[in-house]
Amino acid sequence: MIKTIAIIGGGVIGAGWLARFLLNGWDVSFYDPDPEAERKIRDVLVNARHALPMLYETSMPVEGNLRLCSTIKQAVQNVTYIQESVPERLELKQKVFAEIQAHCPEDAVLASSTSGFKPSELQEGSARPQQIMVCHPFNPVYLLPLIELVPSPVTGPGHITAAKETLSMVGLFPLHIRKEIDAHIADRFLEAVWREGLWLIKDGIANTEEIDNAIRYGFGLRWAQMGLFETYRIAGGEAGMAHFLSQFGPALKWPWTKLMDVPELTEELVEKIASQSDAQSGAMSIRALERLRDNNLVAMMRALKQQGSAAGQLIKAHEKTIAVRAKAARALRTISRTIPIDWTDYNGHMNESRYGQVFSDAADSFLVSVGMNETYVADGHSYFTAETAIKYMQETHAGDAVIVETEVLMADGKKLKLAHQMKRADDNRLLASCEQFLLHVSLVTRKSCAPLSPVAEALAAL
Amino acid sequence: MIKTIAIIGGGVIGAGWLARFLLNGWDVSFYDPDPEAERKIRDVLVNARHALPMLYETSMPVEGNLRLCSTIKQAVQNVTYIQESVPERLELKQKVFAEIQAHCPEDAVLASSTSGFKPSELQEGSARPQQIMVCHPFNPVYLLPLIELVPSPVTGPGHITAAKETLSMVGLFPLHIRKEIDAHIADRFLEAVWREGLWLIKDGIANTEEIDNAIRYGFGLRWAQMGLFETYRIAGGEAGMAHFLSQFGPALKWPWTKLMDVPELTEELVEKIASQSDAQSGAMSIRALERLRDNNLVAMMRALKQQGSAAGQLIKAHEKTIAVRAKAARALRTISRTIPIDWTDYNGHMNESRYGQVFSDAADSFLVSVGMNETYVADGHSYFTAETAIKYMQETHAGDAVIVETEVLMADGKKLKLAHQMKRADDNRLLASCEQFLLHVSLVTRKSCAPLSPVAEALAAL
Repeated sequence: MIKTIAIIGGGVIGAGWLARFLLNGWDVSFYDPDPEAERKIRDVLVNARHALPMLYETSMPVEGNLRLCSTIKQAVQNVTYIQESVPERLELKQKVFAEIQAHCPEDAVLASSTSGFKPSELQEGSARPQQIMVCHPFNPVYLLPLIELVPSPVTGPGHITAAKETLSMVGLFPLHIRKEIDAHIADRFLEAVWREGLWLIKDGIANTEEIDNAIRYGFGLRWAQMGLFETYRIAGGEAGMAHFLSQFGPALKWPWTKLMDVPELTEELVEKIASQSDAQSGAMSIRALERLRDNNLVAMMRALKQQGSAAGQLIKAHEKTIAVRAKAARALRTISRTIPIDWTDYNGHMNESRYGQVFSDAADSFLVSVGMNETYVADGHSYFTAETAIKYMQETHAGDAVIVETEVLMADGKKLKLAHQMKRADDNRLLASCEQFLLHVSLVTRKSCAPLSPVAEALAAL
Repeated sequence: MIKTIAIIGGGVIGAGWLARFLLNGWDVSFYDPDPEAERKIRDVLVNARHALPMLYETSMPVEGNLRLCSTIKQAVQNVTYIQESVPERLELKQKVFAEIQAHCPEDAVLASSTSGFKPSELQEGSARPQQIMVCHPFNPVYLLPLIELVPSPVTGPGHITAAKETLSMVGLFPLHIRKEIDAHIADRFLEAVWREGLWLIKDGIANTEEIDNAIRYGFGLRWAQMGLFETYRIAGGEAGMAHFLSQFGPALKWPWTKLMDVPELTEELVEKIASQSDAQSGAMSIRALERLRDNNLVAMMRALKQQGSAAGQLIKAHEKTIAVRAKAARALRTISRTIPIDWTDYNGHMNESRYGQVFSDAADSFLVSVGMNETYVADGHSYFTAETAIKYMQETHAGDAVIVETEVLMADGKKLKLAHQMKRADDNRLLASCEQFLLHVSLVTRKSCAPLSPVAEALAAL
């Protein structure tokens, strides 16, 4: 079944929403009165198509259709989830919601990307306030999983459940905020840090680059994987969190008075920050910085995925739902994926060892298809590779979509010989081939032995 | 030449300092009157030995010697860098510095790990205040590169330079803070965020796990690689930083009044936070959480290293200095390294493709030794691998130290055939072997051609 989302407003945020749904196979109905809107969303789509598929070891669903609408009415009719990302002016948002409600189904979710307004404010004067909630995303929306889902007391429980289901289907993490509050949660933190940063620059303690380095070489790395409280739990050690609080608590009373005040954003301070930022990052265009950011995020999120931790755990879970959808009618096609950014070497192409990784994954995929699933491995048996021989025919690059076709050359007791061909998905061109000799082993003794049911039967049948 | 550092005080921070220097080949003289100190530093060393070597694609220097001293005098005599990490009480720190200065050389650096005191406060009543500065690290000190280096106006410029040199030698990043200020830079941010977090919990808006998720699924990932200002520069888009400031600025005036106040750390609030933290993370011991944190940090920092960005850029630069030191007298030994955590697969051992990566790196190392350096590649020539055949003899695990020995089977015009043997460093046991067939290519035409000088001559000589 094709799912459709309506996106109202196409700045960086709206276009990011659009890209995430489109690349997850949803149709998107889009409305923005800006004549530049189409160009802007195409720019974001270029970035998203580069980055998002690299998070997964499987191919993504076929892209949905993008329908550019000339009215809100056209965009929201018969649609069950509508995401609003128009400029941050309350009366504009209220007007847009009234227009949406005049034409959308009564059970549709009406979600706002606002960081500044509470859902109860958005609901003021609404005919059906129960449809309205905040779903606040983080840039780049096509990569970062966090959505702050903020209902007001009158938002309908059914609407909340429906919103969570939709967001989860495209790999987002809806964080349900129990009470509405100015700035939700994350932006309160961002605002607090931002205020400190302005003071440090105004007082000449540090410039923009020094502040960025203070964050990304230190606590930024900690926060990307554990956040604030779990990090401090570790700092507290065996004595526990209460001990840590009693140790760290008194510092709150120290005379860091500037922390409580807000610096005036004078022309002078704006100019100071802007020129420091130019000195720090001006050598790169915004487009190049976006690409750098996305490549870094993809590589870090893939690292966390390999560890099964933090954001990587979310991606793993989402990947399973994609793989199920992508499976049908692929007999011997063991791999279908996009080559990620962290596989490129100094020759500007995929490193030879990553061909080995694709063929290793192809063998895993084949083995799962003959019954060597997680239970089989957990019960103490698996296959180890004893020999591989690879021939490299063509160069492969980050972003290339590839497939692998696998056939069995020999299956005789504990011995298994596979042949793989890796091809470019576009034109079926042969990129590399691999012969692999595997031995069935006991994970307890680490010695070879004959395969058990159901793997033995499945191999015998081939 | 063996370098020596003195570490005074061995809590989590002091032990982290100790581990970083020891693992970088420095001798360490250590003093802490706590009878439990030795056990505590051994615990941290176990973690550091697991994690730090995994950041590098080369082996680290041979570990230095740890000398446990029974007096400060014994620890600091003839030492040029002394790091103090005793409890955060000003009069205690001043007393310790007086004792250090009674016995250390006049040109030695005296650095404090304090987060709460300014260097001018530490210098009060000191005989030689010019020796004293703050070098504030971040936990875990053996992994995170940031050091806030804060001198007072009377700290000696020569001492500052010497401190920077020492810190850089062990892969740390000394961020020179121009003016001393309460809490330096990073802890002002941490404090601001901490204060917000306390309010959110006190007011029942979110619990500790929800706050951690709000950070690590969203802006935490952004901050780990770009920090605050470069991230916002991108958000500002082509219109630039000044435009972004004018857009975001007004939000500072909004009535987020809680931001300006500090919640009382009542028993009730402490209990609330502690029990939420237990519910979130209590199923794991502190030791297990530390290991999880370190594995995540290693995997993310390795991802950034592969991108040559943020903290990964620092590690790359440091690795070059290690590799130079580790080189001498290794003729055909092309690889000497530790197997990192992100190379383990579901069979609980190193994935087959990572053997391929080690052999690919061995070929690179061999090629550099025959003159295919960065200039040669930049000038448009390189080797591409056409075929590899690998035999896997033994399982290899994360944390194992391995070496590769490489020999040339054939070098004939554009054709090159290498044979590699990967062995366990401890006992020289053969883990895997590889034959590799490479072709010299033009990176412009992407076609094969004969090698140029000096590679051609070096291969002919073999």
